[in-house]
Amino acid sequence: MSDTTFSLAATFEELLAAKKYNTIRDVLVTMNPSDVAAVMDDMEEKGMPLLFRLLPKEQAAETFVEMDPELQELLIKSFSDTELKEVLDELYVDDAVDIVEEMPANVVKRILQAADPQMRREINEILRYPENSAGSLMTTEYVSLRPDMTVADAITRIRRTGVDKETIYTCYVTKDRLLLGLVTVKDLLLAPDDDMLVSDIMETNVISVDTMTDQEEVANMLSKYNFLALPVVDTGGRLVGIITFDDAMDVLQEEATEDIEIMGGMTPSDKTYLRSTPWDLFKHRIPWLLLLMVSATFTGMIISGFEDALAAQVVLTAFIPMLMDTGGNSGSQSSVTIIRALSLDELEFHDLPKVIWNEIRTAVLAGAVLAAACFVKIMLVDKLLMGNEGVTPLVALVVCLTLAVTVLVAKVIGCTLPMFAKRLGFDPAVMASPFITTAVDAVSLLVYFGIATALLHI
Amino acid sequence: MSDTTFSLAATFEELLAAKKYNTIRDVLVTMNPSDVAAVMDDMEEKGMPLLFRLLPKEQAAETFVEMDPELQELLIKSFSDTELKEVLDELYVDDAVDIVEEMPANVVKRILQAADPQMRREINEILRYPENSAGSLMTTEYVSLRPDMTVADAITRIRRTGVDKETIYTCYVTKDRLLLGLVTVKDLLLAPDDDMLVSDIMETNVISVDTMTDQEEVANMLSKYNFLALPVVDTGGRLVGIITFDDAMDVLQEEATEDIEIMGGMTPSDKTYLRSTPWDLFKHRIPWLLLLMVSATFTGMIISGFEDALAAQVVLTAFIPMLMDTGGNSGSQSSVTIIRALSLDELEFHDLPKVIWNEIRTAVLAGAVLAAACFVKIMLVDKLLMGNEGVTPLVALVVCLTLAVTVLVAKVIGCTLPMFAKRLGFDPAVMASPFITTAVDAVSLLVYFGIATALLHI
Repeated sequence: MSDTTFSLAATFEELLAAKKYNTIRDVLVTMNPSDVAAVMDDMEEKGMPLLFRLLPKEQAAETFVEMDPELQELLIKSFSDTELKEVLDELYVDDAVDIVEEMPANVVKRILQAADPQMRREINEILRYPENSAGSLMTTEYVSLRPDMTVADAITRIRRTGVDKETIYTCYVTKDRLLLGLVTVKDLLLAPDDDMLVSDIMETNVISVDTMTDQEEVANMLSKYNFLALPVVDTGGRLVGIITFDDAMDVLQEEATEDIEIMGGMTPSDKTYLRSTPWDLFKHRIPWLLLLMVSATFTGMIISGFEDALAAQVVLTAFIPMLMDTGGNSGSQSSVTIIRALSLDELEFHDLPKVIWNEIRTAVLAGAVLAAACFVKIMLVDKLLMGNEGVTPLVALVVCLTLAVTVLVAKVIGCTLPMFAKRLGFDPAVMASPFITTAVDAVSLLVYFGIATALLHI
Repeated sequence: MSDTTFSLAATFEELLAAKKYNTIRDVLVTMNPSDVAAVMDDMEEKGMPLLFRLLPKEQAAETFVEMDPELQELLIKSFSDTELKEVLDELYVDDAVDIVEEMPANVVKRILQAADPQMRREINEILRYPENSAGSLMTTEYVSLRPDMTVADAITRIRRTGVDKETIYTCYVTKDRLLLGLVTVKDLLLAPDDDMLVSDIMETNVISVDTMTDQEEVANMLSKYNFLALPVVDTGGRLVGIITFDDAMDVLQEEATEDIEIMGGMTPSDKTYLRSTPWDLFKHRIPWLLLLMVSATFTGMIISGFEDALAAQVVLTAFIPMLMDTGGNSGSQSSVTIIRALSLDELEFHDLPKVIWNEIRTAVLAGAVLAAACFVKIMLVDKLLMGNEGVTPLVALVVCLTLAVTVLVAKVIGCTLPMFAKRLGFDPAVMASPFITTAVDAVSLLVYFGIATALLHI
């Protein structure tokens, strides 16, 4: 949403008011559907449907797909049945499904009534699959070829049917709906001879996914193999749809955002920031804040339990924030790294021993450096510079020993929890910073008071 | 890296030892290059080059591209000059550049010597562009058409030259290297008449990027517009290369990983987790840990400054961890949300007032709920259940007031810092949790002791 977009919405509103429809149309046809959608987003509600009607049919449908669900709903409500049918006829089935999934029941009913029978059947079929599954992400509009076609036949078929297909560049070879192989348009165009059979040039080692495969896994596969599309087959190996790279890109973005939100201690949200009301933000943020506030009771209890020790050596209190923060940071470094590696399929549960061994060695290095630096800092800054009399070398030793142990414990907790979470079928991201911070806080305080009691005899 | 891959590496090693090369070859040709690369990754060093030589030429090159830089280097060193030349001849220029960028100087020299003169020139041209720019990401191998070609001419040209191009599906129309428009293979195949001119069917509103555009922006554009490829032009509007969707997907993944690492308080790393040594992990993690340990001196100083107050009311100490953690969590919720929105281009700096207003209202809601819940918790758990005598309603009030103010301050700091960072040209992710935690810790302690001094008269 750049500044340009902003002013263009105002310009369109002025032009609409002045009824300069031809001028608007001239500008609109030069624009990309995503950009038109962004401008409509910024317009006032009453001008928007008018502007939409000025778009050529195909561009209108493509723009419609790019709009926010709220605006789509608004538009559908302003459509006549004929207008709705016109837009639907131009949509790809998977886009139509995406829209249907976001609409309230009465709007869905209108959409299904306006769709032609075949599209209605296909929408209903895709809707059967669970959210976030390959089946719900796929489109049923692909080019299928028969193995006994010649290259020339295949090109003719693509020319005849291609206009309604989401991608024509990867064609699937089927017999009785069984997926036998794939042929790209590049293979067809570069084939040495037009009379060759599709079965002669097709790739038979086809990588496919099941309708129930998780969308994140599908997206990771498309990204790993650099495919334009991935076929989706049912349990009998019959081709039921394809998933294209653009949908995979959206999934990758969504899943990364979701991981980041969960790691930041929020329940994930579908809305963009500027579309979220404070109430939306509040709802996604308050659960973890409440949970963590209550769980901090433990840390409070630990401190209360050592109240007498603290009263005897008040100087110890001053180092509590540093110990807790460093522990929390060390732990979230490990957990965040592991969570991301799990998302990218770089790690499996059986790597756990290797991971723990890695983290232990890293923690020993980091703990030693931090403890040494901390000792120097305490003696120079806290003792010499600030003249804090309570700070003795023995106190500094207690703090630094605690620091080293805390870093070690934090890193081991930080790498272990996400891997167990994944193993048990939870989202590993839930185990990120806020949760680990609380666990590490408690451990670091226990270690602190334990070492202090032993060394300072309090 | 699934279990299947693991055992396959062992199988290949056994087959290599038994010299069953035909069996290996039969298995290899059924595999996708990414998967072959993963298997090689798991093999012992000495078997790997042998296995590589069993691959057919084209598959060998595609596998080579998918391998880790360490293994590529190992392979190149084992290649004869002829073998190196054979692999290079099959590579796309942008993949060759990626490899060159990762190799030590002596290997680069060998690669450039083995490359044919045109490829050498193109590699050198792309190497001139700064890392992470569109210029360094692009490939110079695209299909270009002239505007006065007929559709039939264009298809003939694609058939003749397409085999060496990274994508043939989007062709660029140029005159004197100036980018005039684009034509897709779909447009060409579906054109009603083979004698139509390319200039009649080409799309003239071409969205392009400059050679210096940041790669994250390029990837976001490809994802937003669902393009297969995006043309890269120089300052004179001349076409110099294209960026394809598969590279954009990799960039999206990398940039998300980088943001997550920085938000987790680490310097970003190119290596996957399992390829990182403890020393690598240590280097990426210790800077922030040291910095944050030292900056925690401020929180320590604040506590030392109020040592007498704490000695008088030791009960106050018990709530310090809860206040600091809740403040830190509230702040990182906001900062993480804003950082992600900035990465996805959903927010601009001029949205700052709107963002702050949003966060203030969210903070008031969250602060009120948290403070109320906290008051109830303190009176029930800490006072009644645990019988802590120091806990009075007035102490509970001090804690809850501090909590509400801290949440407000944390959310405002959390949303503001990343936006200013971006405005000043820094990476907003640097402003995430660890940094904000320290800032919020200091503020929350000052507020705590301020309110405590005022209300408890200590």
